[in-house]
Formats: sequence, structure tokens, C-alpha cells
Amino acid sequence: MVSGPSGVGKGTVVREVLEKSGNIRLSVSATTREKRAGEVDGLDYHFYSMEEFMQLASSDQMLEYAVYCGNYYGTPAGPIKAWLQSGLDVLLEIEVEGAKQIKEKVKDCVTVFLLPPSLDVLRKRLELRGTEGQERLNLRIRRAMEEIKEASFYNYLVVNDNIFDATADVLSIIRAEKLKTSRIGSFLGEVLKDQSCER
Amino acid sequence: MVSGPSGVGKGTVVREVLEKSGNIRLSVSATTREKRAGEVDGLDYHFYSMEEFMQLASSDQMLEYAVYCGNYYGTPAGPIKAWLQSGLDVLLEIEVEGAKQIKEKVKDCVTVFLLPPSLDVLRKRLELRGTEGQERLNLRIRRAMEEIKEASFYNYLVVNDNIFDATADVLSIIRAEKLKTSRIGSFLGEVLKDQSCER
Repeated sequence: MVSGPSGVGKGTVVREVLEKSGNIRLSVSATTREKRAGEVDGLDYHFYSMEEFMQLASSDQMLEYAVYCGNYYGTPAGPIKAWLQSGLDVLLEIEVEGAKQIKEKVKDCVTVFLLPPSLDVLRKRLELRGTEGQERLNLRIRRAMEEIKEASFYNYLVVNDNIFDATADVLSIIRAEKLKTSRIGSFLGEVLKDQSCER
Repeated sequence: MVSGPSGVGKGTVVREVLEKSGNIRLSVSATTREKRAGEVDGLDYHFYSMEEFMQLASSDQMLEYAVYCGNYYGTPAGPIKAWLQSGLDVLLEIEVEGAKQIKEKVKDCVTVFLLPPSLDVLRKRLELRGTEGQERLNLRIRRAMEEIKEASFYNYLVVNDNIFDATADVLSIIRAEKLKTSRIGSFLGEVLKDQSCER
């Protein structure tokens, strides 16, 4: 799971990570809000009716969900389980509250928080977008500060100083996590069994 | 710390890792045994008199030590501390018992066990060396099995199927470990402080 404040470059890092590794799939959120023009079901979101959504949520098939502006948003467990079972890794771009909910349920998931080199750099990046007034920008910075205060709950901190290093950082984390004895310790038995079959 | 059975290719992997990263130093063991022809003090070993060695060991300046064939071997703490303080990483090629002793003292050190793809592959690699009779070879395989049984104590398992992947695995582990919140969580405070200084 990758989180980080608005403007930190989550989308770009996630896209680069997916491109550099053929073995990772991006989780697609579910929502009850109306499909907008140009959006594709299953690609931008899984679009569900309120009934469908609640049925999945109540049968524990949503890893997390929340209401925002009267619409439900959530992470369906089904596709993630299927990908993991077929040996793929799954990446989630997710906000802090969702990440916390999932970490509660899926203990061995890995959480990465993307940080700006400084709040000043974050402000400059948001200003460069040029789409927002000063007030809304200050609001975003304050929200970023709140999120960064929560970041100590994450397993890893990656500073997005430049996209090349940040992408390599995330790829290293994924590679290293897969080598943890806590995940692949059973391989030890296989190596030893190997021998006893042979002679 | 990197451990692994004889013939697994520890030396080659360690050499490649050092070559690929300019930021890592290799710890040099200390010993009380006689310097052999061609050996360089401080490069092959730190050669100490029994008195010097025991003085370091008794003043807690050996991270671990053991006796082998009447000679003492150990890991001096001094150079490692100095390298770490100057921002470098330190790699130790070490056997299982030494790794255990150090892990006891230095909780946040990282342990990697190098595995052969199978014991059969290990046997073939040892045979290819061609320097040993069948009996000595069987002894090495039995010893390897004992060591592999201990490997569950290590943080990471790296299968040395080919030197390229195994080197990249170890480099990923080092890179990822340096991004752990438990190591660099204080950076969060810095990012936030940044802001309060600015305005």
C-alpha cells in the first residue's frame, strides 16, 4: 500500500513501479458514485449499486470502505486475493484511513508512505499545478501535515526527491519483503527435503 | 551480516555487492593466529597478540569471538562503529554462531542467509572445485544441512541461483532496510519542522 499527501507524486511513482515490474497489479477501488464520462468500469473504478456495495461490505468482501460526499468508496478483496493466489503482487494507492483498516485485517501487508523532501517543496509542487487558489493550497498543506503526522504507522518512508530514486526505493522494498524469512521460511524445509529424497 | 554454507558463493556475492555500491565497507576479522605469507594486516585479518585480543574482548570491544584450532577469531567493534558513524554501511561475512552473538548485542543489525537452490546444486558446486575427496565433501554437505536448519533465525533468505539476482537481492535488502520507519522515523519531525520554521 502506498499513501502520501496530495502533490507528493503518488500517481507518478505508482505508474513507474508498475511499468518497471511486470509482476505487479494495481488494485481498483469500488464506488457507488455515478460513472463520469470517459470512465471505464473495472479500470477507473468498479462501479456498484448501493445494494451491491453493501452486500460485499457486509459479507467481509471489502478490505476497507468509507463514505465521502454521500458515496461509498472501498477496496474489494476478491481481485486482490485472486492476483495474490496466482503469484502476482498487488499495489494499492490508498489514503491513510483505508491503509489503517487494511493493515488491521491483513497483518503481513506492507505499507509505504511517500514524503516530500520538505513541506516547502510540496507547496511549490502544488503551486506549479496552478489549479488552485492560495486558500485551498493552504488547506492542502495543513492536510498534508496531518497525514505526515500519521506516517509513523507505516512500515517504510520514501522521500520523493526525484521519481527515479523513489521508484527504485519502492521496487527495492517489494523485492526485499519477498525475501523475508517470515514469508519464505518454508523454503528451508524444501532445500533440506531435497537432499533426503536424493539419498 | 551475510552467512551461508561453504560452497554457496558467499565470497562472490559479497564482492559483487561491495563493487556495485560505493557506500559499503567489509568488516575485517581479528585473529591471534600467525600471519601467513602474503597476508596483509588490516586487509586479510587484524593480527593481534593473545594479550591484545583478550584485552579487546574483555573490554567489550569484540562484537563476537570464538576459538578455532587454538587460535582466537573475532569481530572488532571499533572499525564498524567508526564506519557507521561516518554514514557508511558495513557488511560482515560471518558464520552462524558469530551472527547470533552479534544479533544479541546489536538488535537493529540485518541478517541474510545465502541458500543454494538445493543441496544437490551445492554438492555439484563443491565437486566442481575439485579440491576435496568424497568423504570431506559429505562432511561439508552435512555441515551445510546443520547450518540451513539454523537459517530461520536470519531476517532474510537469499537463494544464490545466479550471482546477478543474488547480488541484486542483497542490494535491495540494504536499500529497503534504510527506508524502514523504525530507522528513519525522525525524518517525519524534520519535514514538519521545516514548515514551522518557514512561516
